Amino acid sequence: MHCLNVELGERSYPIVIGSQLLGDPQHLLPYIRGKQVCVVTNETVAPLYLERLLEGLSGFDKVDTIALPDGEAFKTLDTVNRIFDLLLEQRHNRSTTLVALGGGVIGDMAGFAAACYQRGVDFVQIPTTLLAQVDSSVGGKTGVNHPLGKNMIGAFYQPRVVLADMNTLQTLPERELSAGIAEVIKYGLICDAPFFDWLESNMSRLLERDPQALAYAVDRCCRDKAAVVAEDERESGRRAILNFGHTFGHAIEAVQGYGSWLHGEAVAAGMVMAAELSRLRGSIDTELVARIRDLLSTARLPLVAPDDMTVQQFLDAMAVDKKVMDGRLRLVLLRALGDAQIVDDTPPELLAEALENCGAV
Amino acid sequence: MHCLNVELGERSYPIVIGSQLLGDPQHLLPYIRGKQVCVVTNETVAPLYLERLLEGLSGFDKVDTIALPDGEAFKTLDTVNRIFDLLLEQRHNRSTTLVALGGGVIGDMAGFAAACYQRGVDFVQIPTTLLAQVDSSVGGKTGVNHPLGKNMIGAFYQPRVVLADMNTLQTLPERELSAGIAEVIKYGLICDAPFFDWLESNMSRLLERDPQALAYAVDRCCRDKAAVVAEDERESGRRAILNFGHTFGHAIEAVQGYGSWLHGEAVAAGMVMAAELSRLRGSIDTELVARIRDLLSTARLPLVAPDDMTVQQFLDAMAVDKKVMDGRLRLVLLRALGDAQIVDDTPPELLAEALENCGAV
Repeated sequence: MHCLNVELGERSYPIVIGSQLLGDPQHLLPYIRGKQVCVVTNETVAPLYLERLLEGLSGFDKVDTIALPDGEAFKTLDTVNRIFDLLLEQRHNRSTTLVALGGGVIGDMAGFAAACYQRGVDFVQIPTTLLAQVDSSVGGKTGVNHPLGKNMIGAFYQPRVVLADMNTLQTLPERELSAGIAEVIKYGLICDAPFFDWLESNMSRLLERDPQALAYAVDRCCRDKAAVVAEDERESGRRAILNFGHTFGHAIEAVQGYGSWLHGEAVAAGMVMAAELSRLRGSIDTELVARIRDLLSTARLPLVAPDDMTVQQFLDAMAVDKKVMDGRLRLVLLRALGDAQIVDDTPPELLAEALENCGAV
Repeated sequence: MHCLNVELGERSYPIVIGSQLLGDPQHLLPYIRGKQVCVVTNETVAPLYLERLLEGLSGFDKVDTIALPDGEAFKTLDTVNRIFDLLLEQRHNRSTTLVALGGGVIGDMAGFAAACYQRGVDFVQIPTTLLAQVDSSVGGKTGVNHPLGKNMIGAFYQPRVVLADMNTLQTLPERELSAGIAEVIKYGLICDAPFFDWLESNMSRLLERDPQALAYAVDRCCRDKAAVVAEDERESGRRAILNFGHTFGHAIEAVQGYGSWLHGEAVAAGMVMAAELSRLRGSIDTELVARIRDLLSTARLPLVAPDDMTVQQFLDAMAVDKKVMDGRLRLVLLRALGDAQIVDDTPPELLAEALENCGAV
């Protein structure tokens, strides 16, 4: 079992990474202050892990559960409102604790519900996907999608504790495992070249779900992310490098409709686009682009745009992305392996060329 | 013109109190950081003050306006979602500023929209009712109602500046002026006995809308509230005294349906109930209860429960109030004029007696 602390002053919290954490209430109980708990999960995860979690919560006055429909398509204000309905119907007060049991979508919605319910109650994250374990465990980003843009409504809100249980990854569908690996690879690319090397040597262990390799990767990504977030909690500057590949990826998700490509798949293709654009700007060479494509390919991830998606569709979708500042598109590009930079002066023709080189029509 | 600073560390901001502030952009412009502005107002206030405000904002790249339907009944998540729709349709980015022009309902919703839009953008408050000037200017409480409870969904979020323009009070309907005075009287009761004395001598000036008397009262209430809030920004303790009369008042609003009684009217009757309960507990004498009733009556405010509302309806509605902690009803009562305390051990029969003495059936 690893434990790392995310240092954010009075909002600091621990991330516990290990196996068999879910069935062991000692990891959870010290972080629940009141007598009421509400578990927020989805219809896919509930049959697998809910019962084991509830066994550990039997000592509380009130334990309610809400199982939301599964998928990014349901990450909406309306779904969050269902959580509020339950909390109010069941008279949860300001000292209640929300427990998010599920992937990133559940964590984002439960966290946002916790941020807003009675202007803020405690919450705990139990991410059950690799993507959520490496990406949602650190950073405090919560929120929902809007028909006109992804994650446009939300809050920065920190959990009291995060439990990343490697056992929950054993039941993860293969596509979702790969989607999580896309974000894992991202950390190598933007800030941790030695980890990228490690991934090139150990990808087969991750794909075989070796618990020790998974725990190592989750721990390393969380540490990398925590270092970036500690510098810039509210994303006014450097934290934006975490969005490497995401501006392109969000465009794919927005145009395809949330849920048809997994987030990590869209980010994988987006990272190839960002790498290709970095190459066109002369920052990195073709060899590095090839290494990136090879590693993503080994992880069974897409490397190009969806079949029918046009350059113009990318440009339109990217224009409403949060990274647009006063009309200038800000992109995260690579200066070298493990070294990302934020640029806002990309010539439009170069952007179009990179998109075409990556399959946009 | 008065100016006072609400001290909250890096979230500190000024409140400017005076006349003719709306037409004078120098009060506003230093607090708008980006090039985009969205004015959030309602259909009642827009025809009166929007044009004057927009004249001062002519230098920005983009100024959008949304006029929401007027009234507490529209303080919902759905209405806030209309603000998000506009912001996204018009491509407002993370450096946009929301300007709330209206009463407390508009301030609460615009502030909550600002807290959540892209996880937080700047906002400015221009409260146009007395209630909003004394109550919403300080404290950072934003949010919306839920069918099962008032202000149950929201955020603590501070504005960049508050402009309280006494001119906007000249067009205020008489009932709303009185409703604002209810909150003004509250400050005298909970923490400022000399101000209660001043109000007994100067109520006629307030009712005649003397700008100097109004500005004095707004300034005094904001200072009183700022002192309480500075001690306890997120309402973990003493700040709860600001809810004097509100637990009863919220019950009236919830049962009558939001909007049929004005918030300040419900709080006025609620303060009489809280005073009566304080008397039954032996904390204050009948003479003080009579002074409170007299002052509220002079201000043309209700002193008793709605005609048909029962004791049981009060108790049920109060049980879902935010002030219920682990099943114990927390109430703000008076120890003396200008001295409030929080109690959580009220005998149910005493509570029922106080409600009956104040007209509940």
